[in-house]
Amino acid sequence: MENIKVGIWGFGAMGSGMAEMLLKKKGVEIVAVCDRNENRVGKDMYEVLGIERNERKEVIIKSDPNEVFTEKCADVVLLATDSFTKGAFEKIKFIVERKMNVISTAEEMAYPQAQEPELAKEIDRLAKENGVSVLGTGINPGFVLDLLILALTGTCETVEHIKAARINDLSPFGKAVMEEQGVGITLEQFNRGVENGTIAGHVGFPESIKMITDGIGWNLEKVEQTREAIVSNIYRESKYAKVEAGNVAGCRQCGYGYVDGQVKIEMEHPQQILPHLEGIETGDYIWIKGNPDISLQIKPEIPGGIGTIAMCVNSIPHVINAKPGLRTMLDIPVPRAIMGDMRDLIEC
Amino acid sequence: MENIKVGIWGFGAMGSGMAEMLLKKKGVEIVAVCDRNENRVGKDMYEVLGIERNERKEVIIKSDPNEVFTEKCADVVLLATDSFTKGAFEKIKFIVERKMNVISTAEEMAYPQAQEPELAKEIDRLAKENGVSVLGTGINPGFVLDLLILALTGTCETVEHIKAARINDLSPFGKAVMEEQGVGITLEQFNRGVENGTIAGHVGFPESIKMITDGIGWNLEKVEQTREAIVSNIYRESKYAKVEAGNVAGCRQCGYGYVDGQVKIEMEHPQQILPHLEGIETGDYIWIKGNPDISLQIKPEIPGGIGTIAMCVNSIPHVINAKPGLRTMLDIPVPRAIMGDMRDLIEC
Repeated sequence: MENIKVGIWGFGAMGSGMAEMLLKKKGVEIVAVCDRNENRVGKDMYEVLGIERNERKEVIIKSDPNEVFTEKCADVVLLATDSFTKGAFEKIKFIVERKMNVISTAEEMAYPQAQEPELAKEIDRLAKENGVSVLGTGINPGFVLDLLILALTGTCETVEHIKAARINDLSPFGKAVMEEQGVGITLEQFNRGVENGTIAGHVGFPESIKMITDGIGWNLEKVEQTREAIVSNIYRESKYAKVEAGNVAGCRQCGYGYVDGQVKIEMEHPQQILPHLEGIETGDYIWIKGNPDISLQIKPEIPGGIGTIAMCVNSIPHVINAKPGLRTMLDIPVPRAIMGDMRDLIEC
Repeated sequence: MENIKVGIWGFGAMGSGMAEMLLKKKGVEIVAVCDRNENRVGKDMYEVLGIERNERKEVIIKSDPNEVFTEKCADVVLLATDSFTKGAFEKIKFIVERKMNVISTAEEMAYPQAQEPELAKEIDRLAKENGVSVLGTGINPGFVLDLLILALTGTCETVEHIKAARINDLSPFGKAVMEEQGVGITLEQFNRGVENGTIAGHVGFPESIKMITDGIGWNLEKVEQTREAIVSNIYRESKYAKVEAGNVAGCRQCGYGYVDGQVKIEMEHPQQILPHLEGIETGDYIWIKGNPDISLQIKPEIPGGIGTIAMCVNSIPHVINAKPGLRTMLDIPVPRAIMGDMRDLIEC
């Protein structure tokens, strides 16, 4: 059997991270990379990554998807360009019409049925028409605050209420994330940013919540979200941000899913730099009230960057095996680490 | 759409527990029960359960499977009679040949490829021949020490070592379990029981370990297991057992999976009554060494009885939807609680 062929669209932190991971795996090769960053366009992928190419073929990074992605040039394309379904849609359509499977890192694509049901239907239709499948995944949405919760409910006779929190440290992330989360600015600037939408906070609560309610058969009536500043009591300084005492160290976002007129799902995701400076331990937490009750913690939290990279790469065989259409974490087998030859996971 | 029809074979703690759970669910009904316990044979299932039958049809418990299970009388039969694949095999064959899907609680059936590869192949062949699927599941094996671990590895680029422990309290279990685990006997009796096989301990480590190694693509060389007495320092007394100080409160079982000549998977499962009397906290614990490291705990542990019942019942739609053959937790979507109509989960 030939190697599994992978294309990558978007070669930022996620795209290049997936490339690095793939290069360590057996039975898989990267055949095409599309990226519009002018520092990377025209260069060999191996050069950009700083990895010895050895006997492998050159993969020149190009900015024009028409040049990069010819029909069936890859078994799957990893799309790491967008956070929102609307932004990713045309690219997904482009790949699908070239008869290749897609795995998207776009947070909304983890469950596009939540906020873009029309686009979700259209993606499903296009994928079926072209005999391929499309999946959105990542660490969150995609795992911690949805699939992991759903997996735990599998051990329950009944579920009455779900609460979950992901408390993480933003310090390793770059400038863009600092700006999206409002790290380092004043409270007034933060509140203005929330109002005008420049403080994006976490993208994914409606997706995680809808995936859970659809997954266990609750009728979701509405999702509410709040975003508030995490005001630092002390001076905090990390590689990409400085926070004066009294200014904003991050964004605490909460999400609430209403079922039968009640909040049945509560999610909390405070993201800040250096939370341990104020005694806050990072971690992933899930509390299910039902029969039985379940209380889970993962300490520290599963890191976001490598977690998303791994979830996408580890989903490759499942997406290749999947029935054509828009797929979600609800209908593929659970992705797991791939320590052997990736081809062994492909169904004939 | 008609209700999903379920048959139950074996009406002990697990079988009757699954019946009770099913009776609370929408879109599903129990159509047949087979059991050989003379206190139950000939009685209406509802009478045995102590549940009002109301407008539902009588389900008379019969001991002869030929009378109970006619061809396609159910969409799926829950088989709760055995711990070992050898013991369950003829019953599985019987059901499959009557063209019904099977979910088995037999611990070894969670991954029969581990210790009964020939029977596993034969079950797979029979299931395909008859267009149905067969799954073994439960809380452990089936979830805590295998599927949950595998799901966590999905967030990992690499996995180097896995350690897991399930520390539980046997107090709620009945006399049979007390005897299998050696609760209340002397150390000498216990050691003799381990030698002659009457102390069964936990059934499932080879299955969990092989499911993990196959799941992530490690080549499993061998599995070693140890069973040792948990000697109580104090007097312990529960509903079904009394343990004098110096005698045995339970069985600590360990399992080791060898990959590349090294122990890469370590599992520990100390099962005893009233561990908290000696300051031991029950819980499920997983430690993955890799990129990233992951440390998970569920405290207290997910209870074994309801957990197994729920895993089996919640797997029903996935087994009905599955491709014909022997299926495992590696290839069905993750089961989750079913709070809506079970029929909504059936693919057309």
